[in-house]
Amino acid sequence: MTDSRPDARLLTPGPLTTTATTKEAMLHDWGSRDETFIGINKRVRERLLEIAGVADTHECIPMQGSGTFVVEATLGTLLPRDGKTLIVINGAYGTRMTQMLDIMGRNYVTYETAENEPPNPDDIEKLLSDDPAIDFVTIVHCETTAGILNPIEDIAQVVAKHKRSLIIDAMSAFGAIELDPGRAPYDAVVFSANKCFEGVPGLGFSVIRREALERSAGNAHSLSLDLHDQWTALEKGGQYRFTPPVHVICAFEKALDQFDAEGGVTGRNKRYSNNCRILLDGLREMGFKTLLSDNLQAPIIVSVHMPADPKFVFEEFYNSMQDKGYVLYPGKLTIADTFRVGCIGALDESDMRGAIDAIRKTLKEMGVANGAPA
Amino acid sequence: MTDSRPDARLLTPGPLTTTATTKEAMLHDWGSRDETFIGINKRVRERLLEIAGVADTHECIPMQGSGTFVVEATLGTLLPRDGKTLIVINGAYGTRMTQMLDIMGRNYVTYETAENEPPNPDDIEKLLSDDPAIDFVTIVHCETTAGILNPIEDIAQVVAKHKRSLIIDAMSAFGAIELDPGRAPYDAVVFSANKCFEGVPGLGFSVIRREALERSAGNAHSLSLDLHDQWTALEKGGQYRFTPPVHVICAFEKALDQFDAEGGVTGRNKRYSNNCRILLDGLREMGFKTLLSDNLQAPIIVSVHMPADPKFVFEEFYNSMQDKGYVLYPGKLTIADTFRVGCIGALDESDMRGAIDAIRKTLKEMGVANGAPA
Repeated sequence: MTDSRPDARLLTPGPLTTTATTKEAMLHDWGSRDETFIGINKRVRERLLEIAGVADTHECIPMQGSGTFVVEATLGTLLPRDGKTLIVINGAYGTRMTQMLDIMGRNYVTYETAENEPPNPDDIEKLLSDDPAIDFVTIVHCETTAGILNPIEDIAQVVAKHKRSLIIDAMSAFGAIELDPGRAPYDAVVFSANKCFEGVPGLGFSVIRREALERSAGNAHSLSLDLHDQWTALEKGGQYRFTPPVHVICAFEKALDQFDAEGGVTGRNKRYSNNCRILLDGLREMGFKTLLSDNLQAPIIVSVHMPADPKFVFEEFYNSMQDKGYVLYPGKLTIADTFRVGCIGALDESDMRGAIDAIRKTLKEMGVANGAPA
Repeated sequence: MTDSRPDARLLTPGPLTTTATTKEAMLHDWGSRDETFIGINKRVRERLLEIAGVADTHECIPMQGSGTFVVEATLGTLLPRDGKTLIVINGAYGTRMTQMLDIMGRNYVTYETAENEPPNPDDIEKLLSDDPAIDFVTIVHCETTAGILNPIEDIAQVVAKHKRSLIIDAMSAFGAIELDPGRAPYDAVVFSANKCFEGVPGLGFSVIRREALERSAGNAHSLSLDLHDQWTALEKGGQYRFTPPVHVICAFEKALDQFDAEGGVTGRNKRYSNNCRILLDGLREMGFKTLLSDNLQAPIIVSVHMPADPKFVFEEFYNSMQDKGYVLYPGKLTIADTFRVGCIGALDESDMRGAIDAIRKTLKEMGVANGAPA
């Protein structure tokens, strides 16, 4: 892509399409010890606590790097070195937490369902009843592997009833899917600047219950990824311990302004749900079949079965869509051959209708009669 | 600072001042699996190996986050879990490596000199002779704590002679101070996008000898910070394992173009040395005294003794300089009360003369007769 050609619309779960206003915030340089920059960080952290609805009980700690960095930082900081964690898995992001704990050498058990099947709160209840050694439970709110929305409130209730701690990886959901801390109490929720808040990548956040954070000193397996240490430094002098991605942070502040202007979680959910509806309707009209039933489908990313028509070659389809200005996301599910289409980012109804038109046109060019799977 | 006011010149060791061209590269969104973006990553890695002069023997692996993240990643990936490291220290960045290894639980010894005193290669030779269990040596090329340039070639020769592995933290030096792999052989050199290459922060690199990297599988203490795993993924599919900071990376490519156009390391060294000269001469003319003698002073950042005049209040000085458009760097040395003035980033002779004029004007406003220390 050259500068003279407009950017493609990214129908991906991130990096995703951001607004010009957000990107233009990166046209300035800031000193990391600058009072104005320190003020930006402070406000961003406060605003995120307000959005989460936990300003009285939790702290917001930013972390440099991708979403995985802040998930790992949260696990490393909060899980006691001699604790035991129940990792709830129905996709790649749950599985990734087992890799993290394997490397850290921390004890865990897993409860796994298929990528298109939500975890059952009753099963989790039994696991917690049977094993009092489990002190933490981790779960992914929206597993972008398949795009499934997990029943976070029911599971959080079970965890709370058994007085265990809950860590939610809400990477792809936070900011667009309500997470009521009253109905879904948690010790930590983790998310990225670059998903539903529509910032640029390079920054994540963990919102952690103050008491859990206070207890966590010395747990971390890594200096860089120690959220207790990061929090202590931010509280003390308002500064990151190590060079912050200043441009990414300033872009995030602008992205938050736009988030507020759209009506916060409610407004963003409305736009994404509408985007998703247009996508689902348009795809089904062409005979495509989605992996998930609508009651499990988060308005974040849609997994679509590969069409059976032998003339449908995914790489050709992908490239032709990109030529038309739409970037899809190749699937990597274990249970089904799919591709994925995201509906988050700075995209609206017209973008989604444009994407559907481009898919229709591409199928025609390829001589594919319809999108029906085998 | 509002959009209508020009950005301050950052006389800091990073985040530093970058060019408009570099920042404007961030005005686009890219999919992380996009072929063009994958090509950018590939070229960036190849170009850095060429700049280092080790294209035949080493690999270049990027890492999300600040410079500290890639230092920690390099130590965690390369140091065997049962190995022993000699950490050469003369400032905060050497000390930080001890913190990292304490947390990782890896064995080390230290050799420490004062912040204004270079390590003695003979001392290091003795330490290596006396302790055959030491398999790795780490050293900081330019310690920005005081701004000292360490005798990297002499030390590298000693380490090579004793057949140990050398890891160089060249964060603030690489790209502006020559590091000849013939005269200073190393297993790894670590640097940031945001120092002498004048990119924006959020990305670091480790250039690692291929054999050392191949031996390192399974060493890492962290999934996110595992450079062997990061390398394997990049080699396999050209993609980062976890969301890359796409905007930061695209800015870095543009910064590299400007680096080449300036004449590479030679050109950049020339400009920074000239910046440093103007700074030193100007400061001394006003009676200021620098911490380091000129033979130890790297053309990166200058530590200046606080003036003795009681009318000199650093915070007032700092704020007044910022009002004039120049951001300084408060000192944090243990051995002397200093402040620091950087001379790297997209700054030239006129910027440095402007800084000197602003310092002169500020002293006058404060009624400080001269900068002489106690």
